[in-house]
Parts: sequence; structure tokens; C-alpha cells
Amino acid sequence: MIPLRAAIPHTLGMAQDSRRIEPRTLKGFRDYLPQAAIAREWLTERACSVYRSYGFSPIDTPALEYEEILAGKGGQETEKQMFRFEDPGGRRVALRFDLTVPLARFVAQYANELGLPFKRYHIATVWRGEKPQKGRFREFVQCDFDTIGTESACADIESGLVIVDLMLALGFERFTVHVNDRRVLAGLLELLGLEQRTAPILRALDKLDKAGPRAVAAEMVSAGGASEAQAAQVLALAAVEGTNEEVVRALEGLVGANETGGAGAAALGAFDAAVTAAGAPAGAFRLRPSLARGLDYYTGVVFETILDELPSIGSVCGGGRYDDLAQLFTGQRLPGVGASLGVDRLLAAMEELGQMGATRSTAPVFMPFFAAERLCDYLRLAALLRRGGIAVELYPEPRKLGAQLRYADRRGFALALILGDEEWAAGECQIKDLATGESTVTPLESPAGGLVVAVERALRAREGRNRK
Amino acid sequence: MIPLRAAIPHTLGMAQDSRRIEPRTLKGFRDYLPQAAIAREWLTERACSVYRSYGFSPIDTPALEYEEILAGKGGQETEKQMFRFEDPGGRRVALRFDLTVPLARFVAQYANELGLPFKRYHIATVWRGEKPQKGRFREFVQCDFDTIGTESACADIESGLVIVDLMLALGFERFTVHVNDRRVLAGLLELLGLEQRTAPILRALDKLDKAGPRAVAAEMVSAGGASEAQAAQVLALAAVEGTNEEVVRALEGLVGANETGGAGAAALGAFDAAVTAAGAPAGAFRLRPSLARGLDYYTGVVFETILDELPSIGSVCGGGRYDDLAQLFTGQRLPGVGASLGVDRLLAAMEELGQMGATRSTAPVFMPFFAAERLCDYLRLAALLRRGGIAVELYPEPRKLGAQLRYADRRGFALALILGDEEWAAGECQIKDLATGESTVTPLESPAGGLVVAVERALRAREGRNRK
Repeated sequence: MIPLRAAIPHTLGMAQDSRRIEPRTLKGFRDYLPQAAIAREWLTERACSVYRSYGFSPIDTPALEYEEILAGKGGQETEKQMFRFEDPGGRRVALRFDLTVPLARFVAQYANELGLPFKRYHIATVWRGEKPQKGRFREFVQCDFDTIGTESACADIESGLVIVDLMLALGFERFTVHVNDRRVLAGLLELLGLEQRTAPILRALDKLDKAGPRAVAAEMVSAGGASEAQAAQVLALAAVEGTNEEVVRALEGLVGANETGGAGAAALGAFDAAVTAAGAPAGAFRLRPSLARGLDYYTGVVFETILDELPSIGSVCGGGRYDDLAQLFTGQRLPGVGASLGVDRLLAAMEELGQMGATRSTAPVFMPFFAAERLCDYLRLAALLRRGGIAVELYPEPRKLGAQLRYADRRGFALALILGDEEWAAGECQIKDLATGESTVTPLESPAGGLVVAVERALRAREGRNRK
Repeated sequence: MIPLRAAIPHTLGMAQDSRRIEPRTLKGFRDYLPQAAIAREWLTERACSVYRSYGFSPIDTPALEYEEILAGKGGQETEKQMFRFEDPGGRRVALRFDLTVPLARFVAQYANELGLPFKRYHIATVWRGEKPQKGRFREFVQCDFDTIGTESACADIESGLVIVDLMLALGFERFTVHVNDRRVLAGLLELLGLEQRTAPILRALDKLDKAGPRAVAAEMVSAGGASEAQAAQVLALAAVEGTNEEVVRALEGLVGANETGGAGAAALGAFDAAVTAAGAPAGAFRLRPSLARGLDYYTGVVFETILDELPSIGSVCGGGRYDDLAQLFTGQRLPGVGASLGVDRLLAAMEELGQMGATRSTAPVFMPFFAAERLCDYLRLAALLRRGGIAVELYPEPRKLGAQLRYADRRGFALALILGDEEWAAGECQIKDLATGESTVTPLESPAGGLVVAVERALRAREGRNRK
């Protein structure tokens, strides 16, 4: 009933004339060769494991949705970026361009069945028809987590802790999660009587790192309708620095007189105390009053994560709290908080920082194949190792050692198990470390499990060396 | 540079008028709610782990490709089933409908870089615009593995062993991998002088299980141009049964006089000996001379896997050997062997056989939240458990026990850690087994690691009970 391989008559055996089709990918799209695919799989599996450790559950939604659902009331920008078309049934459909709109549709559709609060992660491909640029693709994987249906500060704090656990699980030690609360800025703008001008003022403020305070102040005046004194007050708030405790005290002084601002400052103080109590590494979180992160979407806590050694690549994990996820689809108010892990940026960073494994193999152990008549014995020993939990690749045909070791080199195995005529005759196996070239010899049959134990020992020795 | 969440101006806060969009999915598409998504993730992770244990590496290719690449020289059937459209740049593109054509394009494009043999797995979504039916969707996940660039029988045998390991890893104990070699049938047709009529005769033979031998013989005569005596000989070969050794001997008698047929029969004998040597469970493989599996594609060994308790759902893992994967794209001859795991069918089977976990949670441990002023303590204990390797979900806000336990019930946690005012005052934690309702009490602070150890013990007790 469900289609398996070759349910469609295949074209592979049909090219009997000489016309060939050029093998190529579309502009802005890319293939993942083993090394890159292994790294990405490692990253998403680590992320899953962190999400699960907090009780987030996976979900999935279709890549294709009704165009009206994805377009929502979005502007021109969204429309331009979507891959849209008419399906065979004449429906207007589009490929999802993020995982947030599908999440909104999903929770609206199943709210009763899911129950609230609802904690989900979603790791899936999205498509954007924007102009391809260096490092910017039309197809990429997003890796989001969100807690829907609660306004509790606990969910905000947990989101921050998830980000720290993600970074640590991915092997990053030097990173900073920048945290702010949108209510602090909102409170200041209320104090200044500028709450109606929030959008242009925040749009200007978002350029602070790139354009500097002078240009930002000018834009706040020209586009935001602020006076020069008011612009200076917004910039003074954004410039607040110090330890997290000092920042909270300064913010309380600047916006504490306003209810919204005071709540934001207090929330930042509580956040800082809680992540410390939960054992987050010292310095992992930095309160940063200039962080605005977009315009309309976020309403409370906001996060951005910077790699201390690679600040230029930008935030590798960002998100925050929003007031109502799904008002486009339901009357039920669904507040939430979450963030998105930047898979492509993190893989680029891992490569740049030398944290990316160079292996193109998923198995650490290589078993060359020399003696054709020993096929059953090779298969038996490989199966023995696999049952012992050791992944092993058997070369599929008898060839010269040189050719097989070139194959092994290319893939980056840790060990080779040499079993030639001599070894078979002696009932032994050579365990060769492919990095050092050193070999040890171990008997094949006795003691029971001896080969598995010896290979495990050699793998541990190799790992120990790599850690040094 | 690389887009993160909210790089597109979001529509979520824009629905200020009352118009709502109905939340719904396209016909033939579906959402995965947590229970289904958890099961699918478990299945694909198990499959990955088996593939890796043999040294298969992951790859990925774009969902969208040039239409000419996917359509190849395919017939009407392929064309009708593809989601095809014009991209924003005016290119004719389509969504992939399987993972085999993209693999062919991929190996043609990177053959030098990859090196041969090349062993890959690919777990990814494909789309087919066919008429939706019960259990048949327009979007589904395929889970393929292939070894490209070797004609060695070792790769055929290993493919069979991978199938057995997959079934065992997924918890199936009663299954049969049906094995045949296309050369046996080809040899018989050569002996009968019917090699030019292979396609219609195999097409008829493929209907044997459903239509019975009388109808198949009639079709071989009418459509295949065979005499009645010839049809009877083909059916006699297909009817060969017995132990695997008996089947091999019978086939050698029937087709051994022909070179192709003899090679096929010998290969089946060698296959059987090798999988036995490699420790495959007795009865896991059954040589089945009637298995044809499609028309033009396979040229050597073919596999289909039947669940003994659910034969009616059809093959859950099928594949075989093919002569040349990528002749549409390259002059390099690339033979291969592989198979495809039927993800949807297996999930349906797990559900029907009661092998599917009922949990909607990824964390086994639930921590209700009672005392608002203890937020930091809850977070600290949850972090302690996570560092000890135990996934725990903290309810995000203080509510009555009843409401929180209803939430827990719905998700199917194993344990709840009750920490109310009384427990905090006494410095204790109640570990409640949510299935039996039994509780044990453990001190929070001493001895060091005591809580982690006590929770681990309670989880093990629960698992032990579930196994009985």
C-alpha cells in the first residue's frame, strides 16, 4: 500500500541512446557529501538530545501548505521569498519558509489534543527563493524549540538554559548568550511618551553595533520623531554595562518608575538569579539592554548567542518571548517562548574553529578483504564486532592492500584489522592504528570476546591520544 | 549571513482584524503529533545506527531539482506523479519523488571525490502527486541504503545482513527476508528461448500471489507469447520450495545448464552459506524463486521482507542489485546493490502489533511545580538530574497537583518527583511511580548524588516491570 523503492517504473535502465543529462544542482541549492552530512547529523542529534532532556517533543508538518496559510497577512517580502505554485489539483500551494508559521497553524489546529503547555522541537528543511549569496542558500535546515501556552518566567529561564546546554553539547566553551527584556525598552519609550514611535526607534537601535551611536541618534530623530535629548536617553539605556547585577540596578533606576519597564528590569534580575542557581557557567549570560531583536514579534525576554571567538558570524541561537503565536488561525490566545539554533552558522563555526571531525566514515574500524575464499570468515568477524557494539566496514572485494588502504585513508578510519593469508593461518588478527601505523596482534578465537576487547582497547587508546 | 528565526518580517502579530484563516493541511499531507513523531524519530535513529555499524555514510540532496534530471527519460507515470513547477527564476523544477534518481545524479556528479565503492544511506522526504488513498500519502519519508561501484557478492550478502539487523533493531523477531536472484529466471527464459519476452512474462509472474498460477499461465501465453508448456516450466521454477539447500539444488537442476541461470543458483547458495556464517537467525532468509520484484531495474539478487504476523501489509524492506545506476548522467558504469526501509509500513505494523510506545513525552521524569518561591530550587534539581543523564520536564508554573498530574497522565511520564511545601521543609523528595502510584522518599541533599541514584533506580524498576 505504501510506496517503496521502484514503485515508480524506473528510468535508470533506459538510457540506451547516447544523450546524457548534465548532473547539476539548482542555483542556491547544495548537496551534502558524507563529511558534511555526518557533521550535520551529529549536530542535530546532539540538539535533539538536549531538547529531550527538557521534555520537548518532536513534531513534523508538511513541507507544502496552502499558500494562504503560509502567506498569512505577510507583506511583499514574504510573498517574494516563497516558492509558490499550483498543485496538480489546481490549489495554490507553497513550500514553508520557516517553522514558526507552520507551528502557529499546528497549535491552532490541535490545541485540544495537544494540551497546554506544549513544548515542541522541530528540525526540518525550509525554502526561500531569495537571491543566493555566499553562505546563504535557498534550502536550509531549521532547528527550533518553543514552549507554547504559558507566560511563566520559568519557561523563559528554561529557554535560556536550553541554549547553554546546546552550546556545551556542541563542544563550544567560549560563548555568550545576550539577554534583554523588550519591556525595558518599551517602558523607557512610555516614560518618554514615544510609545507610538516604537517601530522606527527600535529599527534605528538595531543598527547600533554596525552604524554607531551618532548615526542611530540621527535616525531616531529623523525617522522616529524623537528629540535629540530623547534619543540620547534611549542610547544611554542601551549603553548600560557592567555585571548582570549592576545592569539590573541601573535599569531599575532608568525605567523602574514605569510599570512595564520595572517588570522587565525585575524579570532580568530574576532570570540572572535563576540561571545561576541552575548551574549555568559563570559569564554564559550577559544582560544587554541594547538588544532589540526585530520589531513586532517579541514582547518579553529576547536572546542572541555569540561565539566569543567568532563574533562576526552573528548570533548562532536566537529567540525570545511572544504574546500570541496563532491569532491568524484561532481566537485562543497562545503566548510562547523559544529559540532557533543556527545549524549552518554553527557548522561553519565548527569548521573554522577546527572542531569539525575530518572523518568521512561512520565506522571507526576498517576490515580490508584479502582472501576471497575467506569471505564467510570476514563476515563472521565483522558481525561479531557489531554485536559487541563496534561499527566496522568490510571492504567488499579482495584487492591489493595498497588500494584498500588508500580507500581507508580517504575516509579516515581509526583502525584497520589486517587479516591476510598469514594471519588466517596463524589464527591471528593485526590491529593497525591508521594514525600512528603501529600494530598489535591478537588471537582470533581465544579467549572468548578477545577480539572485541582488543579492538575496544585500541579505539580507547586512539581517543585518549586525540584528547591530548 | 545565514537566516535565523524572524529574518522574514513575521505575520504573527498582524491579525488585528477579525478575519481568520482556517488551519488545515493539504489533502494527502499530514502532521506528525508528538506520539507519531517520537515513534518515527526512534525508528530512523535505529536505522541510522544499523547503517553506521556497516560503515554507510549519510548524504543529503536538495528536495528541488531540475525537472529534466528527475524526469530523465521516465514515462508518463513518473511525469504525472511529480510536483512540477516553474521557480522564481523561470526554471522548470520538481520535487524529488524518490531517493534513487537523486543518488544517480549525485554519484555521477561527485564520483571522483567520493571514491568507489561508495556506501551511503539517505533518510529524507519525497513527494508524489498521486491520488491520495488510505495509508498512501503525497509526502513521505524514505530510508534507503546502497553500496555503489562494486559487483562483489560480499555487498549483496551485507545488504541482506543489514536488513536482518534493521528488523532486529526495530524490535521485530518474526520476519522473513525473501531472496531471489534475477539471473535464475533470466537463465530459464534463455533456455526456453524466451529472453526477448522477459518483460511481459515477469509482469505476469509478479501477479502469482494475487492471481494464482492458472491466470498467470494464461497471461504468459497471451501477453508473453509463451507456449503452454513453457508457461508451465516458468511456473514450475517459481513453485520450487524447501529448505534453502533444497531450493538451491532444485534450481541448479532446472537452470544449471545455462550460464546465467547457473551463476544465479550458485550465488543464492553462496548467499545462504554466508549469512549463516555471519550469524543471521535461522529462518531469517528464505530463498524464493518466484520473487521477481519489478521489471527492468534489478539484475541480480532481490530482497523483500515480510512480517510473519502481518504478511498482508506487504514488504517492509525491499531492494536488490542493479547493473548501472547513473548511465543517464555519466559514461562511468556504476553497478550497485541496496534496499529501502518502508518507514510508514513499519510504523503501522509497530502500532498494530502493540510495539509502539504510547508515550507523548521525550522525558521519563516529570517534576510538578508547586511552590512559586522555590523556582530556583526546582531549576537547580532539574539541572542536577540532567547532568546525571536523566531527562526531566519541569512544569512551568505553580498549579494545583490535580491539574499537573492530568498533564502528566496525558503525556505518559514514568515518574513524578513531588516537591511540595512539606517536602521542601523536610529536605526530601517523593519519587512517585505514575503507573503503580507507589512512592518512595529520598533526601534531597545527602548523600552526594543521592537523588540521581534514587531516580535511576526507580526508572530501572519501572523498565524491569514493563519487560515482564
